[in-house]
Amino acid sequence: MDKIFYPDSIVVVGVSDNLNNLAKVIAENIIRFQYTGKLFLLGRNAGKLNDYPIYGSFDDLPEGIDLAIILTPAATVPGYMEECGKKGIKNAIIESGGFAEFSEEGRLLGEQILAIAHKYGMRFVGPNCIGIINTENGICSVFLKVEMDEIRPGKLALLAQSGGVVLTCTDVLGGGGVGICKTVSVGNKLDLSETDYLEYFLQDKATDQIVLYLESIDNGRGLIELARAAEKPIIVYKSNTGQASAHIAHSHTAALANDEQIVNAAFKQFGILRPKTFHEMVNMAKGFTMPPVRGNNLAVFSRSGGHAIVSADLASEFGFGLPPYPQEVYDRAKEFFRAAIIDENNPLDLGTVFNFDSFPILIEECLRSMRPDAVMLVFNYRRETIPTARNIAEKLKAMSQAYDTPIGLVYFTETDEISWLEKNLGYPVFPEVYEAMSAFAASREHNRYRQHQMTTEARPQEIVKELIPKDAAQQATRLLSSAPGRPLMIQEALELIQFYGIPVAPWALAPDIEGAVQSADQIGYPLVLKVVSAEISHKSDLGGVALNLKDRHSLEQTFLDMQQRIHTQAPDTAISGYLLQKMVSGGREVILGGKRDRSFGPTVLFGLGGVYVEVFNDAALRLAPLARSDAQSMIHELRSSRILEGARGEAPADIKEIEDNLLRLSQMMMDLPDILEIDINPLMTFEHGSKAVDARIVLRGEPGKPA
Amino acid sequence: MDKIFYPDSIVVVGVSDNLNNLAKVIAENIIRFQYTGKLFLLGRNAGKLNDYPIYGSFDDLPEGIDLAIILTPAATVPGYMEECGKKGIKNAIIESGGFAEFSEEGRLLGEQILAIAHKYGMRFVGPNCIGIINTENGICSVFLKVEMDEIRPGKLALLAQSGGVVLTCTDVLGGGGVGICKTVSVGNKLDLSETDYLEYFLQDKATDQIVLYLESIDNGRGLIELARAAEKPIIVYKSNTGQASAHIAHSHTAALANDEQIVNAAFKQFGILRPKTFHEMVNMAKGFTMPPVRGNNLAVFSRSGGHAIVSADLASEFGFGLPPYPQEVYDRAKEFFRAAIIDENNPLDLGTVFNFDSFPILIEECLRSMRPDAVMLVFNYRRETIPTARNIAEKLKAMSQAYDTPIGLVYFTETDEISWLEKNLGYPVFPEVYEAMSAFAASREHNRYRQHQMTTEARPQEIVKELIPKDAAQQATRLLSSAPGRPLMIQEALELIQFYGIPVAPWALAPDIEGAVQSADQIGYPLVLKVVSAEISHKSDLGGVALNLKDRHSLEQTFLDMQQRIHTQAPDTAISGYLLQKMVSGGREVILGGKRDRSFGPTVLFGLGGVYVEVFNDAALRLAPLARSDAQSMIHELRSSRILEGARGEAPADIKEIEDNLLRLSQMMMDLPDILEIDINPLMTFEHGSKAVDARIVLRGEPGKPA
Repeated sequence: MDKIFYPDSIVVVGVSDNLNNLAKVIAENIIRFQYTGKLFLLGRNAGKLNDYPIYGSFDDLPEGIDLAIILTPAATVPGYMEECGKKGIKNAIIESGGFAEFSEEGRLLGEQILAIAHKYGMRFVGPNCIGIINTENGICSVFLKVEMDEIRPGKLALLAQSGGVVLTCTDVLGGGGVGICKTVSVGNKLDLSETDYLEYFLQDKATDQIVLYLESIDNGRGLIELARAAEKPIIVYKSNTGQASAHIAHSHTAALANDEQIVNAAFKQFGILRPKTFHEMVNMAKGFTMPPVRGNNLAVFSRSGGHAIVSADLASEFGFGLPPYPQEVYDRAKEFFRAAIIDENNPLDLGTVFNFDSFPILIEECLRSMRPDAVMLVFNYRRETIPTARNIAEKLKAMSQAYDTPIGLVYFTETDEISWLEKNLGYPVFPEVYEAMSAFAASREHNRYRQHQMTTEARPQEIVKELIPKDAAQQATRLLSSAPGRPLMIQEALELIQFYGIPVAPWALAPDIEGAVQSADQIGYPLVLKVVSAEISHKSDLGGVALNLKDRHSLEQTFLDMQQRIHTQAPDTAISGYLLQKMVSGGREVILGGKRDRSFGPTVLFGLGGVYVEVFNDAALRLAPLARSDAQSMIHELRSSRILEGARGEAPADIKEIEDNLLRLSQMMMDLPDILEIDINPLMTFEHGSKAVDARIVLRGEPGKPA
Repeated sequence: MDKIFYPDSIVVVGVSDNLNNLAKVIAENIIRFQYTGKLFLLGRNAGKLNDYPIYGSFDDLPEGIDLAIILTPAATVPGYMEECGKKGIKNAIIESGGFAEFSEEGRLLGEQILAIAHKYGMRFVGPNCIGIINTENGICSVFLKVEMDEIRPGKLALLAQSGGVVLTCTDVLGGGGVGICKTVSVGNKLDLSETDYLEYFLQDKATDQIVLYLESIDNGRGLIELARAAEKPIIVYKSNTGQASAHIAHSHTAALANDEQIVNAAFKQFGILRPKTFHEMVNMAKGFTMPPVRGNNLAVFSRSGGHAIVSADLASEFGFGLPPYPQEVYDRAKEFFRAAIIDENNPLDLGTVFNFDSFPILIEECLRSMRPDAVMLVFNYRRETIPTARNIAEKLKAMSQAYDTPIGLVYFTETDEISWLEKNLGYPVFPEVYEAMSAFAASREHNRYRQHQMTTEARPQEIVKELIPKDAAQQATRLLSSAPGRPLMIQEALELIQFYGIPVAPWALAPDIEGAVQSADQIGYPLVLKVVSAEISHKSDLGGVALNLKDRHSLEQTFLDMQQRIHTQAPDTAISGYLLQKMVSGGREVILGGKRDRSFGPTVLFGLGGVYVEVFNDAALRLAPLARSDAQSMIHELRSSRILEGARGEAPADIKEIEDNLLRLSQMMMDLPDILEIDINPLMTFEHGSKAVDARIVLRGEPGKPA
């Protein structure tokens, strides 16, 4: 990958001096960006471009070229890749479109290219992209004319699935004063994918923070594994979120939609920031150019009372505290206030202070005596105050570095002056309090996640060992191997979760009435009776479920009725037996679920039974494996968790027991790749302990499911 | 009010040639803004400023001056107001601070000023403000130096409680290309309040849309009455929303906090738009400079596939439909597409169209053949395309007017060019899809509300007549007059709601066991028995409630036990009697509530009983009086309304009956100003009909309540 971003030599393939030739534009951009390596041009017809010869054949090129940039009709790309391979060029950027995003023929062309690349050990960017920009060594492989000063140099690495969006991002980031070191437009991601680039950016010394724009996440698990250990902030703008966009995304970069609930859960779990707009994305990136926000203590100085109120509103919205200032700050302020009467408050309203030079003095006093996690100066001023305001900005920029504390400059003035500051100050300026506050919040979230990662308990696997019988995985695998290509029966599902230590209400499977009576005596009354049959999907419609059987007499009676009814109404149904289960009552119902996502792998879900998941969509989702802290946070993040805690006067449910069961389920999902879905619904939870009552498992290879 | 914004002559009071004199700055601003009327200056010492004499006494001023602008120390303001009054000056702007926001003495000074104003029939703006700007006649009463070109002229009227925020708004609105006709900084609102200004702006011919920044809403009801009939869009940025800001808001403009849930409900009910940020406020205002969005059909043209995907995501987020284009549009497009192969879709991805002049051609074809409610062009381009892009913008601006359809220009390019366009195009340009989409959505919301207002059913009062017994108000008033200064007992509360036709489960009040048995025979079993006592607030703690009494025997037994228990545990308690009530079961519990807000007046609340209101905060709130459509929308906006509709397989509840009861409760709140709060909790609802089981009413003048 290093030779893609830092090649010593490049050949641009497809160049001609034709007016509409796009490869020519690439070459011209590279020349204009003062590329520091050697540049070669290749086209069907030999010729000249600026002072560079256009070679007509690969034979004429020197050996040892690091990177080929190809922009020729799709059908010709395999041929050029073959030539590159033969010539020993190990890296390529394929910008041509017309592959899987365009047609079936295109998809096949793509496969051909992939095969050639494998044959020669080549890696490539694209196809269907605008390639890369590297502001360090002057590469700009975009096929639209770009001036060097259109891309602000800096320390942000940017990846986008769409070429158009790459340049949108460089524009908006640059406009916000955030510079770029590298960009890559990944197009169809036929070979190199977002995880490859991300891995590279994470170790790249020129990169301080990473922004990705993605229309699809094909390897969510890989992305998350990288994010888990990342020290650099990762900001992902994910589009293609709804039905309306699915079609167009596919025809744009052959992108498949993701399950957005899983994307959100995974990002949150692993500290990836997800802006909703480009504006928010820039704002986050601006925040990360300041020292990190390490906690919640905020100090606000505002020239206007109105903006002080807005600041206080937003601080509480974003969960920042505004502790009173130390007396030193107020004492210092007295020198500058009219009549030395100060409303001692944070935010400090500087409305009656007309000597603006006091602002940096007060802020430095605050940094010294209070050591806040972040400072904000809200400064509204008119044109005549521009020189003073610029001077204050310079001072606070230096102070932010000196005290390793972010100082959010919220400057309210004419927009031209804001633009000037964003371009020239080299330190972020925010055009309103909301933006500084949300940038602080993003920085705090990133640092919280980093902190959490460093202090987190031992690896999940070690913890769950205590909770799970030793031979669980073996027993489960044996059971599953006995059910290839068919759905599991309820008794198998119950056995499976029991292997993993999840408590199940006592049950037995009886073939007939005699067996039922015998098992009932062992389990004890009251009982539930259910018919078991792969052919009956809605048991209760057929009267195949009977609750609360209190004694042998009612069991016998009910059994015979049920048998008779099914025989009459569905005479050809194969019955596997009858499930007897101890009737459980008095607990609160919760739902534990597992699902294997195409992209993100095994996930675990938790919610309360009844209307909570269904009507309020109040469910918590995490990627497995869970740490205990994950299980805890899953329970607490539910709005309905108050019901488990005893909101209505009941005793609290056994929360630790629920956590244990979530950890067990998580391990099941990790151990048993054949399980696509599992639902334990309900698990009855009590003041002490819990009992699962029903379980449903969907296996890989079942009719209608992927193999 | 007209003479405040359009005075023929102004006197600025407090001017001197002292370096720090602020009244001088006001005078200089008015001169700089080329005020079209006559300007007089007055100060303690006669003198000269520019070519204007500074008069030393009111006696030297001519008669018939329309407006005085006063900026002198607070203590001197009553004197100057007295002089103005004597001189026949009917209008003033008091910019001085130091009143209720500062101290108790200040508050008293304010009262003095108000008395003087009443004496002379004067009205005034402020105090504690920066007064007004009128770009039509060149008034700028700000006491900071403002250049004329800092305020972009236009058709928006702006009111802000904070002077700092006025100028912030003119900066950000101007930066977004939205011009201003008038601004007013209302300060402490001691005399003229936001409703006075709003009323004026609504009829002002120079004003097309209105923005308010408010830290408190003292007369919410008045605001809402104006909004109800308003044809112009009203945008209100409301701050001072949390505990952290309450203190600072009070010391800033003596502002009191509002109940934010009521503010939100009232704004939504009456079509007031509430932005969360200044940025969003500007964005809404930009939207209102285009033709209105009258429906949901959106047409998107995007040069980049990536942005087309983002557009489709956001269209569905904001509830816009993207119907397929008529064939005419695709046919027209074929001329411009590479290989004439078009992915026939809306958004139309113009990625392979290199002749940008096609954009207006395709959009005009779309306007002609499809008649969409709104069009969006998403155009990302580099510097070399600037002239073309500007030309397209001009064409689409004209087309938007010609077809009376908003065309959202989403231009992605360098920020300097965006700024240039915002300043010079005279038509809004949006820097990302999200912003154009949310501006469209705000416009649609305003127009929907206008539409709803025009087509709404007859006035609420006429409808509820059928639902409420004729003499309800009389009977209720009589009952309430018998309970001055004390809380209502449960039987009185039940009677009161029965007067209004709200069904109550049959009940009776019995003094003793004989009475209880007699009443029970009339009501029928099963029954609930409750002790009634003003002194027992938690009946169940004392065993004062017994449910499901099935026959006379158990009633007698329970009655005696209860009597005995209370006598033993709380021997001195005065018992008013025992309430017997028919036990109601099998229905779904709902909660109907009413509350009289200090600022917004009577409100009505609806929610489902149990955890829904408590845990999920799932309640609907409206200002009374309700129209039937309000009652309907209250029920449907609840997430838990699915439970009433029978989400879990039950028959749906009697929704019409719930609406009727909400309308009855609404009328109660309108008729009976002594009721501060009422809770009907629960009202049991059935497939047919409903029965209230309990009601609690709080009256004005009760111990601990306002009189």
